[in-house]
Amino acid sequence: MPTTSTPAPAAALLARYRAIRKATMRLCAPLSPEDMMVQSSPEASPVKWHLAHTSWFFETFVLREFVPAYQPFHPDFHWLFNSYYNSLGEMPEKKLRASFSRPPLDSILAYRAHVDAAMASLLAHTPEDEAARRIALGLEHEQQHQELIATDIKHALFTNPLHPAYRERAILPDSETIAPPQEWLAFAPGLTQVGITPDPDSIDTFAFDNETPRHTTYIAPFQLATRPVTCAEYLAFMDENGYTRPELWLAEGWTTMRAESWQAPLYWHRDPATKSGWSIYTMAGFQPLDQLSETPVCHLSFFEADAYARWAGCRLPTEFEWEYAATEALSKINCHPERSGEAAESKDLRLSAATNLSGNFVESTQLHPIPAQSKPGLQQLFGDVWEWTQSGYTGYPGYHPLPGALGEYNGKFMSSQIVLRGGSCVTPATHIRPTYRNFFGPSTRWQFSGLRLAKDAAM
Amino acid sequence: MPTTSTPAPAAALLARYRAIRKATMRLCAPLSPEDMMVQSSPEASPVKWHLAHTSWFFETFVLREFVPAYQPFHPDFHWLFNSYYNSLGEMPEKKLRASFSRPPLDSILAYRAHVDAAMASLLAHTPEDEAARRIALGLEHEQQHQELIATDIKHALFTNPLHPAYRERAILPDSETIAPPQEWLAFAPGLTQVGITPDPDSIDTFAFDNETPRHTTYIAPFQLATRPVTCAEYLAFMDENGYTRPELWLAEGWTTMRAESWQAPLYWHRDPATKSGWSIYTMAGFQPLDQLSETPVCHLSFFEADAYARWAGCRLPTEFEWEYAATEALSKINCHPERSGEAAESKDLRLSAATNLSGNFVESTQLHPIPAQSKPGLQQLFGDVWEWTQSGYTGYPGYHPLPGALGEYNGKFMSSQIVLRGGSCVTPATHIRPTYRNFFGPSTRWQFSGLRLAKDAAM
Amino acid sequence: MPTTSTPAPAAALLARYRAIRKATMRLCAPLSPEDMMVQSSPEASPVKWHLAHTSWFFETFVLREFVPAYQPFHPDFHWLFNSYYNSLGEMPEKKLRASFSRPPLDSILAYRAHVDAAMASLLAHTPEDEAARRIALGLEHEQQHQELIATDIKHALFTNPLHPAYRERAILPDSETIAPPQEWLAFAPGLTQVGITPDPDSIDTFAFDNETPRHTTYIAPFQLATRPVTCAEYLAFMDENGYTRPELWLAEGWTTMRAESWQAPLYWHRDPATKSGWSIYTMAGFQPLDQLSETPVCHLSFFEADAYARWAGCRLPTEFEWEYAATEALSKINCHPERSGEAAESKDLRLSAATNLSGNFVESTQLHPIPAQSKPGLQQLFGDVWEWTQSGYTGYPGYHPLPGALGEYNGKFMSSQIVLRGGSCVTPATHIRPTYRNFFGPSTRWQFSGLRLAKDAAM
Amino acid sequence: MPTTSTPAPAAALLARYRAIRKATMRLCAPLSPEDMMVQSSPEASPVKWHLAHTSWFFETFVLREFVPAYQPFHPDFHWLFNSYYNSLGEMPEKKLRASFSRPPLDSILAYRAHVDAAMASLLAHTPEDEAARRIALGLEHEQQHQELIATDIKHALFTNPLHPAYRERAILPDSETIAPPQEWLAFAPGLTQVGITPDPDSIDTFAFDNETPRHTTYIAPFQLATRPVTCAEYLAFMDENGYTRPELWLAEGWTTMRAESWQAPLYWHRDPATKSGWSIYTMAGFQPLDQLSETPVCHLSFFEADAYARWAGCRLPTEFEWEYAATEALSKINCHPERSGEAAESKDLRLSAATNLSGNFVESTQLHPIPAQSKPGLQQLFGDVWEWTQSGYTGYPGYHPLPGALGEYNGKFMSSQIVLRGGSCVTPATHIRPTYRNFFGPSTRWQFSGLRLAKDAAM
Repeated sequence: MPTTSTPAPAAALLARYRAIRKATMRLCAPLSPEDMMVQSSPEASPVKWHLAHTSWFFETFVLREFVPAYQPFHPDFHWLFNSYYNSLGEMPEKKLRASFSRPPLDSILAYRAHVDAAMASLLAHTPEDEAARRIALGLEHEQQHQELIATDIKHALFTNPLHPAYRERAILPDSETIAPPQEWLAFAPGLTQVGITPDPDSIDTFAFDNETPRHTTYIAPFQLATRPVTCAEYLAFMDENGYTRPELWLAEGWTTMRAESWQAPLYWHRDPATKSGWSIYTMAGFQPLDQLSETPVCHLSFFEADAYARWAGCRLPTEFEWEYAATEALSKINCHPERSGEAAESKDLRLSAATNLSGNFVESTQLHPIPAQSKPGLQQLFGDVWEWTQSGYTGYPGYHPLPGALGEYNGKFMSSQIVLRGGSCVTPATHIRPTYRNFFGPSTRWQFSGLRLAKDAAM
Repeated sequence: MPTTSTPAPAAALLARYRAIRKATMRLCAPLSPEDMMVQSSPEASPVKWHLAHTSWFFETFVLREFVPAYQPFHPDFHWLFNSYYNSLGEMPEKKLRASFSRPPLDSILAYRAHVDAAMASLLAHTPEDEAARRIALGLEHEQQHQELIATDIKHALFTNPLHPAYRERAILPDSETIAPPQEWLAFAPGLTQVGITPDPDSIDTFAFDNETPRHTTYIAPFQLATRPVTCAEYLAFMDENGYTRPELWLAEGWTTMRAESWQAPLYWHRDPATKSGWSIYTMAGFQPLDQLSETPVCHLSFFEADAYARWAGCRLPTEFEWEYAATEALSKINCHPERSGEAAESKDLRLSAATNLSGNFVESTQLHPIPAQSKPGLQQLFGDVWEWTQSGYTGYPGYHPLPGALGEYNGKFMSSQIVLRGGSCVTPATHIRPTYRNFFGPSTRWQFSGLRLAKDAAM
Repeated sequence: MPTTSTPAPAAALLARYRAIRKATMRLCAPLSPEDMMVQSSPEASPVKWHLAHTSWFFETFVLREFVPAYQPFHPDFHWLFNSYYNSLGEMPEKKLRASFSRPPLDSILAYRAHVDAAMASLLAHTPEDEAARRIALGLEHEQQHQELIATDIKHALFTNPLHPAYRERAILPDSETIAPPQEWLAFAPGLTQVGITPDPDSIDTFAFDNETPRHTTYIAPFQLATRPVTCAEYLAFMDENGYTRPELWLAEGWTTMRAESWQAPLYWHRDPATKSGWSIYTMAGFQPLDQLSETPVCHLSFFEADAYARWAGCRLPTEFEWEYAATEALSKINCHPERSGEAAESKDLRLSAATNLSGNFVESTQLHPIPAQSKPGLQQLFGDVWEWTQSGYTGYPGYHPLPGALGEYNGKFMSSQIVLRGGSCVTPATHIRPTYRNFFGPSTRWQFSGLRLAKDAAM
Repeated sequence: MPTTSTPAPAAALLARYRAIRKATMRLCAPLSPEDMMVQSSPEASPVKWHLAHTSWFFETFVLREFVPAYQPFHPDFHWLFNSYYNSLGEMPEKKLRASFSRPPLDSILAYRAHVDAAMASLLAHTPEDEAARRIALGLEHEQQHQELIATDIKHALFTNPLHPAYRERAILPDSETIAPPQEWLAFAPGLTQVGITPDPDSIDTFAFDNETPRHTTYIAPFQLATRPVTCAEYLAFMDENGYTRPELWLAEGWTTMRAESWQAPLYWHRDPATKSGWSIYTMAGFQPLDQLSETPVCHLSFFEADAYARWAGCRLPTEFEWEYAATEALSKINCHPERSGEAAESKDLRLSAATNLSGNFVESTQLHPIPAQSKPGLQQLFGDVWEWTQSGYTGYPGYHPLPGALGEYNGKFMSSQIVLRGGSCVTPATHIRPTYRNFFGPSTRWQFSGLRLAKDAAM
C-alpha cells in the first residue's frame, strides 16, 4: 500500500480494519456472555475485556488524537480499559477484570460499534501518516488479542471442572499420519542482517518497535531441525524420567517444575483408558494422546523445552539463528506466493518476500497443531507452535521505543522474558513475519508454545 | 406445625418451601447472568453458584435419599455443587467457582425447576419425619444463602471499579432522624438456660445443631447498651485516632489492620465532597456518610468492634449475655404477636414466644441498617446488623453434630471463629431467633456486622 | 510471705530472685554461643535473646521505675530487647533477633550481672509494694522464658540437619514400664468458682491478670480421663488412618494438616530400624518410639488433639472442667505437702493448698514426659505435658489488664488462641498452679503439648 | 605455569593455595563465632558455612577423587556442606544453614586444617592434570566465596538493628577529592572475538566454563563512559523523582521497586543530620553521603541501573561492548605490568596480557569504592563496582558445561540472570579478567553493583 499514486489507500485500510475486527468477533461466536467473564489465571483476561480493550486502543490512540469532534463512548472507559499504559494515568489492577460484570457485554458490543463507525468516518478520507501508522499498529494489536482470546478461553474452559469444549467438532489427524523423521539442516557461519527498519516512506511495511532496527549480527555455524518436536518424541523424554532428573534442567526450571508439580505439558491429563495413558485437552475437549502423537508438542514452558533439548543432546536455537534460517528458507521459495484470506485481499506488500507463510494459522480453524508434512526443507517454521529460543528479550542495537505512551507497548517488558518465534495455530496469518518477536516469562505454558531443536556445527 | 391432628402439614411445608425458594429468585431479579459470575473474594461465591448449591442441597439430602424414583438433573452436579461435605466425596476447590461459566444460568434455573417439581411431588403427601426435618434444614440453608447472595453481590459490585449499584433506589433516613441516646440496661446475675433442645415430637421447632442442647450457664451481672453503635459514634473513634493507637487493639487485630491498610469500615471511602469527608457504598451505590450517620455502623471486623469497645471503656458482650438479654426482652412483650410475611403464613409455632422479631430484615427491602427508634428497652436486637460478641465459637456441653454428612454442616468450623448474634438487614425475618449463632473469623468484614456495647456491673 | 510481721521479706524475695535467675543459666549450660544464635521458627527466639529480654524486663519495669539512681547497662537495650510492648515505643521485628550476633553473649551475660547487682541493692531493703509486685511478675516472666528456652533450643537443634542433642544422656523409661489403663472419673454438675483474685494485702499470692478475677461458673456433669493419652494410644489413631480421614478433623485443622504435610506429631520421624517404625527426637536426640510408647504423647497441635479425641469418641475438656477437677483433686490431698526445690525454700504460701504439684517438671531434669504411675485418682495433671482444652482464650468476667505497658502482657493476645492447662516437663515446678492459663494458636506444635480426654456424663 | 619443564609447578600451586586459603581467614579476623552464624537474606549464607563449603569443595572434587588414601574429616560433611550439586545427592535446604550452630566454628577450622594438610601432601608432587585443573577451579571458587563473605557479613551486620561495623576504621576520600567529569569514548564497529578458549596444554590459563569458547561477535558502533556513575550523579536522579516516574523503569522493575518500597540504593538511610540528607552504611558503619558523593554508586539492582541510564538518555552496555572496550583498553597498556600481591607471586602467566588490573580490589582493604582518578582512558573498569550490563546470562555458541557434577557450577543458572562485569572492591585482584562473567537476578542489590553508561554512536 504505497503512499503515492494508489487509488484508494484509505479504502484498503478500512477493508483491512473491518476484516480484522470481524475476525475478532468470529472467535467469540461460540461463547456466552458468562464465558466471556472468566479470568482463570493472572496471565489471562476475560474475553469481554479483550473486546473492550482493543476498541479502547483505537479510541485512545487514533480517534481521540486525530478526530477533533470524536465523542468518546463512555467517560470512564478511558481508564477502565487501559491495560498498562502508566503515561495515560491510573488503571484498574489486572485481577479486577474478573469483576467487570458491568458494563454488560451488550455495552461492550455497542462500544465496538461506536468505535467502528468513527473509524469508518475517519477512513472515508486518506488519514494523515501518523494516524495511518497508529491504525496499522492498532490492527496488529487487535490480532495479538485475537490470539490471547483463543489462549485465554482455552484456559478458562479447561479450568472449569467440567472441562467443556470451545467447540464440539474435533479436527484430528488421520490415524495413519506420520510426521516425517526429524533431519538437520546445516547453516554456514557469517555476518547477516536481522530485524527490520521500516521504510519511512511507506506506512505499510509494519513492524513492532522491538523488531527494529535492522542490524548486523554474526552467526556461528549451526544446525536446525527440519520440524518441531512431536508429542511422541516428548513422551519418550517423559518415559525416560525427564521430569525427575535434575541434571536435565536449569536450576530455576527444576525449582519451578517441582513447586508447580509439573509432570507433563499443560493440558495433558493421565487417562488410563487410552493406550498411551494420556489425553490432551484441546479446543474440542479432551482427545487421546494416541491421536495427537505426531503433532508438535505444545503448551511447554521454556524450562521444559530447554530440558527436552538437553536430554536430546541438543539445544534451543538463538532467535537470530531462527531468523537467519527462516529468512533463507523464504528466499528459496518461488515467486508465486499463494497466500490466503484477508492478507491477500489487502495486497499487503510487505509480505511479498515472505511467500510461503501459508502454515497452520488461526484461519485454518484447526486451532491445534497438525503433523508436519513430508517435504524438503524446514517445515512448520510459521504457525502450529511458537518456538522457544534461548534468547533473552532485549532491545536491539539502536533500539528506540515509540514516542509517548505507545513507547510502553513493548520496551518496558525487556527483562526476564524469553523470545519465541514463528507464530502458532491461533496466530492470524497476516500477523506473523520472520522478524517477529514474541516474548514470555520462562515458566509460561498457556500459549501454544513448543520447540525446534538446534545444535552447533563444526566449521 | 404439630405432628398430630394438623390438617395439612405437607401442604404447609410446601407453601413454605415455595415462598422461600421464590424469595431467593426475588433477590436475583436485578442481576444479569454476568453479575452472577463474579466471585470477588475467597469468602464469597458467585450468585449463580448459590442458586445451584441450594438446589443441590435438596437433591442430595432429600430427593436422592427419600424419593426412590428420583432422577438427578445432571450426573455431574452431585460433585460439582458440593460445597464442603467431604463425606460425599471430592469437590472443586472453592476458588474455581468463578470459572463456572458452564453450566449457563439457564441450566441452573432448569435445575432449580427440576428440583422444585420433585419436591412438590414429595410434598403431595406427608413425608416421613426425617425427610421433613431435612426439608426444614434445607429451607434454613436456603435462607442462609439468601443472606450470602446479598452480601456477596454487594462485594462483587463494589469490587468493580465502576462501583455499580445493586439497585438504583436508595432508601435513606430522613435528614432530621436522630438515633436515641445510648443508655444502659442492667441485668442481674444468676443461673440461666441458653441454647435450645428441639422437641423430638415436633419437627418444626427448628434449630441448628450448634444451638443445642439447651443447657445451664451462669451469668455475672452486666449491662448492655440499648442500641448498636452508630456511624457517628464510630467516626468519633476514628477521629480520635482509633486506627493508629495500638493500645486499643488486640495484637492480632493490630497486625491485621496494618497489613490490610484499614482506616475505616469496609465500604467507607474518603469523599472530600461531603461534610464528613466520607461516603459509604450501599446496595444503592455510594451515599454520603452525612445521611447515614445515625444508622448502626456495619461491615466491621471483630477486631474493629473490639477496639471500638475498648476505646469506649466498655467491652463486647458474651454470646450468653446477649441471649439472656434477648430472651428477657422478648418475654416482656405482650401476647399478640404481629409477625409479618411468609413466617406468619406458615404458622410457624416455634416462634410463638418470639413475638417482636419484626426488625429491619431483608423483607423491609431497605438492605441497609436504619436508625434506632426512640422506644424503651433494647432496640434493634434483631435485624439491622449482626452483633459481634466476645465468644469463641465452640460446641455446647453435650453438643453432638447431626449424623452423617450433615454433621459437617456446623461442627467442623468450631475453631478460630467468633459468634455473632441477632441477624442483619439482609437476614430473612423467619430465619433468626434468640438462640441463633452466626460465626465468622475475626477479620471478616463483608457481612453486615456491627456491635452493641456491654460492660460489667457491680453486684 | 505476708507484708507485715515477716522477718525478712526482701531477703526471701532476693533468694527467690537469685534461685530463678540461676535456674535460667543452668538451662544454658550445655549451649555454645553459636547455639544461642539460632532462631528456627517464627514462634521461637534465640536463647541469647531470652537471656537479654528477661533482664530487660527487670530493668524496664523495676529498676528504671523504682531505683532513681539506676544507670541502664546500655542506652540501646531499652528498645533492642523490647519484645512486644508498643506502649514503650518501637522495637525490632521479631525475625531480626536471628541477626543479633552483636551484642555478643559476653555482653548479655554482663547485662544480666549488671541487673542482678542492681536488683540485689534494691532488695537490700523491703521494696515498696508495687516494686515487689513487679519483681514477682518478673520472676514468673523469667520462668516462662525458661520454658521457652527449652522448647526453642529443642526446635533449633532439631532443625539442624545433623539433629544434635541438647544433652547426651537419655532418661528413658524402664522397658517393662506400662502406663496404667485409662479410666474415667465422673464429676457432678454445679456452680463453682474458677480463677483467682489475689489478696490485695499479700504480694505473694501471685497470679497473672488473665487468671483474674475469681468468678462463678456452672459446670455440667462430665468425666475426665485419669491420665493423658500415651504415644501407643496415639499410634493406634495413626494406624487407623487418623491423618487421612476428614470426618475426624475440624475444617481448619484438615486444611492446616494437609498444607503442612503432617503425618505424625512434631519430632516423630519414620525409622525402619525400629519395631514401631518411628523414632522420636528428644532433648537427648532420637530415641525409638518403642521405648517411649507408654509416655504421654506430646508436640501435638490443638487440631491433632481434637481429632484424636473425636476418633476416640470423646472430646477435649473445657478449661473450667479441667480447673474444677484439678482443684478437687488437690483438695483431697493430705496436709503435709512435700514440695521440692526452690519453691519450698521461699516458703511460698500461695501454694500451700496445692500440695501435690510434685509432678515431672523441669527440675526432674527428665526434659521429656514419663509414663503415668499406677495410683488412684487423676495422674499427671501437672507437669509432663500441657493439656489442650477446647476453650478459646478470652478475658474472664470482670477482667482488667494491668495498668500501663504491663497491660500488654496477656490481654492483647485474647483472640484465635486456645487455652492449655497444667504445665509440662520443662515448666518450673513453682510456676504452675490450678488456675494457670497457657495459650497458643491451634496449629502450634513446638511446645510439649498433649491431651487428656473428657466426655459428657448423664446427670 | 606450563605443564612441562617448569621447575616446581606443584610448589607454586601449593603456594598459591596457601595464599588464597589464608586470605579467606584474614577476612574473618574481625568476626566472632556468633557473627559467623547470621544468614540475613535468602541470597546470603553464614560466614561459617562459607568456611566449610570451600573446604568441602577441595575434599569433594580433589581429595576424594585423586587421593586414594584420603580420610574424609567427617562422614556427614559430604552432604551437609554441599551447596547445590544435585548429582552428588541430597543436601540441606539453603535456609537451614542458619541453624548450623553445630558443628561449632572450632570444628570447621579443624576441617579446614585437615583439608589443607591433605592438599599439602597431594601437592608435594606434581598432580595429574585433571587434579591440577580442579585445584585451580577450587581456588577460584574460594575467591568467589571470599567476595560472598564480604557481602554477606556486610548485610548481616547491617540487618542487626544496632548496625555494628565490620571494622571501626573508615577509609574515606579526602574531602576535596572530585571525580573527573564523565566523558565518552567511541568505539568503531566490527567483528571481534570475545570469551576465551583455554589452552589445553596449559592448566593455568584459567577460565570458568561460562567464559568459553572464544568466539566471534559483531559489535555495532557505540560509546562508553570513561568512569562509573557516582553517588552525586545518582542523587540527582533521585532528586528528579527517579523513583516515582514509571516511564523510566522496566515494568518488572517498577513493580519490584514499589513492592520493596525502594527509595534509594541499598544501604542508604535518610539522615537529617547530614547536608545531603543521607548516610550510607559501609563496612565501617554509617558515613555521611557528603563524604562519599564522588565515589561510584553501588548496591543498585539492575532495575535501578537501567532506570538511571534511561533517565540520563543513555543505556547500559552489552557485555560484549564492555569486554571489547576492556580488551582494547588493556592492549594499550605498556608491557611492564606491575601487579601486586599474591597473583604476582604466583607468576600467573594467563594475566600477562591484562597488565593494569591494579584497581581497587579487596587487597586495598578499602572495602568500598573510591573516586575515579583524573587520567585518560577508561577508569575503574576493574574493581570498585561490578557493572550491570544489559545482557542476559546465556551460554556462548559452542558452550559446554564441565563434565560430571562440576557441570552444575555455572550452566544451570543460565536463565533470568543478568551479566555483570569487572569485579568490585571486595573481589580479589587475581580473580578477575576481561572475559569474566558474573551474574545475578535483576533485583539483586547486596553485591557491590553499580553501572557505567553507554550509548549508540553513529557510524
